[in-house]
Amino acid sequence: MPDDIAELLHELIVSTRILANQKVLDAFGHVSVRHPREPQRYFISRHQAPELAEVSDLVELDLDSEPVKPTPFRLYSERVIHGEIYKARPEVNAVCHHHAHSVLPFCISGRPLVPVFHLPAVIGQVPFWDQRDEFGDTNMLVVKPAEGASLARALGRNWMVLMRRHGATVAGTSLRELTFRTVFGCENAALQSAAIAHGHVDSLSPGEIALSAAHSVRPPSTDRAWNYWVRHVEKAGLMPGRSGSRRSAAAAKRGKPTRAKMSKSKRRR
Amino acid sequence: MPDDIAELLHELIVSTRILANQKVLDAFGHVSVRHPREPQRYFISRHQAPELAEVSDLVELDLDSEPVKPTPFRLYSERVIHGEIYKARPEVNAVCHHHAHSVLPFCISGRPLVPVFHLPAVIGQVPFWDQRDEFGDTNMLVVKPAEGASLARALGRNWMVLMRRHGATVAGTSLRELTFRTVFGCENAALQSAAIAHGHVDSLSPGEIALSAAHSVRPPSTDRAWNYWVRHVEKAGLMPGRSGSRRSAAAAKRGKPTRAKMSKSKRRR
Amino acid sequence: MPDDIAELLHELIVSTRILANQKVLDAFGHVSVRHPREPQRYFISRHQAPELAEVSDLVELDLDSEPVKPTPFRLYSERVIHGEIYKARPEVNAVCHHHAHSVLPFCISGRPLVPVFHLPAVIGQVPFWDQRDEFGDTNMLVVKPAEGASLARALGRNWMVLMRRHGATVAGTSLRELTFRTVFGCENAALQSAAIAHGHVDSLSPGEIALSAAHSVRPPSTDRAWNYWVRHVEKAGLMPGRSGSRRSAAAAKRGKPTRAKMSKSKRRR
Amino acid sequence: MPDDIAELLHELIVSTRILANQKVLDAFGHVSVRHPREPQRYFISRHQAPELAEVSDLVELDLDSEPVKPTPFRLYSERVIHGEIYKARPEVNAVCHHHAHSVLPFCISGRPLVPVFHLPAVIGQVPFWDQRDEFGDTNMLVVKPAEGASLARALGRNWMVLMRRHGATVAGTSLRELTFRTVFGCENAALQSAAIAHGHVDSLSPGEIALSAAHSVRPPSTDRAWNYWVRHVEKAGLMPGRSGSRRSAAAAKRGKPTRAKMSKSKRRR
Repeated sequence: MPDDIAELLHELIVSTRILANQKVLDAFGHVSVRHPREPQRYFISRHQAPELAEVSDLVELDLDSEPVKPTPFRLYSERVIHGEIYKARPEVNAVCHHHAHSVLPFCISGRPLVPVFHLPAVIGQVPFWDQRDEFGDTNMLVVKPAEGASLARALGRNWMVLMRRHGATVAGTSLRELTFRTVFGCENAALQSAAIAHGHVDSLSPGEIALSAAHSVRPPSTDRAWNYWVRHVEKAGLMPGRSGSRRSAAAAKRGKPTRAKMSKSKRRR
Repeated sequence: MPDDIAELLHELIVSTRILANQKVLDAFGHVSVRHPREPQRYFISRHQAPELAEVSDLVELDLDSEPVKPTPFRLYSERVIHGEIYKARPEVNAVCHHHAHSVLPFCISGRPLVPVFHLPAVIGQVPFWDQRDEFGDTNMLVVKPAEGASLARALGRNWMVLMRRHGATVAGTSLRELTFRTVFGCENAALQSAAIAHGHVDSLSPGEIALSAAHSVRPPSTDRAWNYWVRHVEKAGLMPGRSGSRRSAAAAKRGKPTRAKMSKSKRRR
Repeated sequence: MPDDIAELLHELIVSTRILANQKVLDAFGHVSVRHPREPQRYFISRHQAPELAEVSDLVELDLDSEPVKPTPFRLYSERVIHGEIYKARPEVNAVCHHHAHSVLPFCISGRPLVPVFHLPAVIGQVPFWDQRDEFGDTNMLVVKPAEGASLARALGRNWMVLMRRHGATVAGTSLRELTFRTVFGCENAALQSAAIAHGHVDSLSPGEIALSAAHSVRPPSTDRAWNYWVRHVEKAGLMPGRSGSRRSAAAAKRGKPTRAKMSKSKRRR
Repeated sequence: MPDDIAELLHELIVSTRILANQKVLDAFGHVSVRHPREPQRYFISRHQAPELAEVSDLVELDLDSEPVKPTPFRLYSERVIHGEIYKARPEVNAVCHHHAHSVLPFCISGRPLVPVFHLPAVIGQVPFWDQRDEFGDTNMLVVKPAEGASLARALGRNWMVLMRRHGATVAGTSLRELTFRTVFGCENAALQSAAIAHGHVDSLSPGEIALSAAHSVRPPSTDRAWNYWVRHVEKAGLMPGRSGSRRSAAAAKRGKPTRAKMSKSKRRR
């Protein structure tokens, strides 16, 4: 596996662990990333609780969400969410679908989610989608390509869509941007619910949304948050090892020499 | 003890630890499983906080909730809940009674609990039962067979019943289905409360409930959730050992050779 | 120190750790126990966050809340709460004063706290006390004997009193009963708040309160909860050692032989 | 580095860890302390999640929030909050800016925050500031000196200011007072929100606020809370080592010999 792909898949697993550790993902939900050189393909875990996924659990799918190579793995039934958004939005490189407890109240009540402080301005305008509108009574899962395409149309040019009585889907131009938007989308939801209980909700003006979002998607913000969340993933004992490397990401961060280097330096003595 | 019974009792303890770790059970509440070959009997822990129960704490009761063999153990005063539901519902093989903080607000307010997103569709229609209606002022515990039978009648053909000013009782055709329904019943309650605070609650249509529930009770869903909850039980240091086995479930999962196998492979060298 | 006193003081520290671990106590609040043979005296920690107290931090006070022997320790400024209740209520042997986040909303809103499910029936009727009524503007602390006596009068024949804009004080005939009532008083408060948000609160009838309370204060209930909370204190690494004993409570529970016994059994071989 | 400065910088890091561990700070927010002998300077971490800061990450800024010595570090874009408050308030020696989830509902709803029990009386009167009023649409960050000066004017003679759709800024005469006021300001907010959901909020009278605040800012109260929070920082594995010392504070507390002493004692043998 080329180094850049190995690095990307490692980052996909780290993003997934962050989102699990931040209580966005639980037994359900999934995160994917587009292939950086083959834009008609994307990577996603086989069917399982996302927190448990390792790099070796990742499969490569085409944009019809079919495996590029035959796989013995069971796949997520809702993977068309990812494929259809990648089809509709060439600038999107990462997608997360989740049922976080912070956003579900909005999916149940139908209250619009709006940015209520500066950091979540990156969610922008958040449309609703109701599978019932186009498809009537279903098992609520987005399984058919037509269902995924309908959801992608509802998302439109936005970055987050709420699915009535179901959950949310979030898109990003990169995994770190996606992770930032997903976590702060959830925090915005929790805080907006608290303000609803106060009886009044003020939100950012359109100008404030545009200016705040432009600031927050830059690496100084997304990396600062990423590094913080990674530290918490490490503390929770959830940091994945690196496949194709003798060095754990945690060890690398602490600046410890790898075992290979240590052997060398011992040999020198 | 035959292997299938040993396996079932181990699974009963794992289910109990999952429900404790997911904050459904605390010092009170209990879980039982029907004997797979003697449908007139069921297994349940002796009287204690359910999280602390080991396989060696389990007792075998008949459907009048009397011990099959004399036991020195103190028994749960509310065990008739289990016996009377097993009597009334031959297809039920597992029962949980709990006072989870997520469902109690419904037991106190009398607000009906309804499925508000797809995963908890498995709770279906949830009736209320008020011990006061038939028995007047009591200590609120379901102790007499007549009280248990009354509760079982209120449950009827459903899978979950709310007990006013007391708690909830949940039934399943298997331990894994029961565990899934119990946890997601609690999550539904928490999220419905949050939507109530938003001022409006939408719920699944009858068709959506039927289709979603049919999907969720299949093993791909219940096992995916079970495996995730087991991982969290392991991380919390709550995974029970296996009686009659030299191998802990956690070790088995990590694919470590058992001590027996290790000895053999060492002998081969 | 006689063995029964040593045991009692150990139990006082365990109770305090339970209440800290259950988020009833934080940096503030305190727990005391009456001397079992000298009813005009009680034991309480020196001034510090209660979770940090060890047996060696306990002081013995008379019912005017003055130290029986001179002590270099700083004492709790609100210790008269304990002394004045012990004076007024000979059957009370343990007292807890706290500012738990679950009860404070009632102290702020003035909403009456009522038993909303069976386990907290032990709180019974819960009167309010407002220091402002008798003493006008103060620093809100119950420091003067007259203030403590006023609070004890408000408590009357009950077991829990809410202090407006301040916190709660709870009494028990024993440490285990006190711990049970204090924890379930807090759980009742949290659940009643959740039902208030549902728009309706049903409570136990007077008959249900009497019957449920009579059941819950018996050792099978209080010990079952105590053992569960102790296990969680152990898991949190908060279990105190035993002064005057070679054996930690945790080790005792696991059934490990003490060092003393081990030496003996080794000598026998 | 002189010993008193080393001690102060260590305390700044401890305060920051306490505020992170108490869920006041997350990936964002920052804490600073004024130089004790050069009142025109203050210390603050370089740009990063505050929980991750070590003493070696601290920079020394003048009151225009420019580095006293050239630094390769990226600095917080909102550091003028600190500099402008130090300019306006000579008696302020420590400042914290945060977006705690407990206070944000007030920043979103515009509900006034008032002391609702005795311990948070130290927040006193809490004014609002809306960056939009003076500066129109911005990215919501307090970056320009004029923006910081405007915030400092809104703070006035008070100790805490709420920033609409943004967060809070808190001041103190010392790090311990600041930490106490910041944590209890958050607790007050959470509890006031809970009382709002009860439908009624009573607050301390002006006389009670003055008397309670005077009591709580004294070292017996602030140190009692500080020691408790430090214990929790230690338990969370977040206690910083001491620069300029071979001995970690946690180790020191446990009474372990430092490495230096150990080497000496080994040499003696």
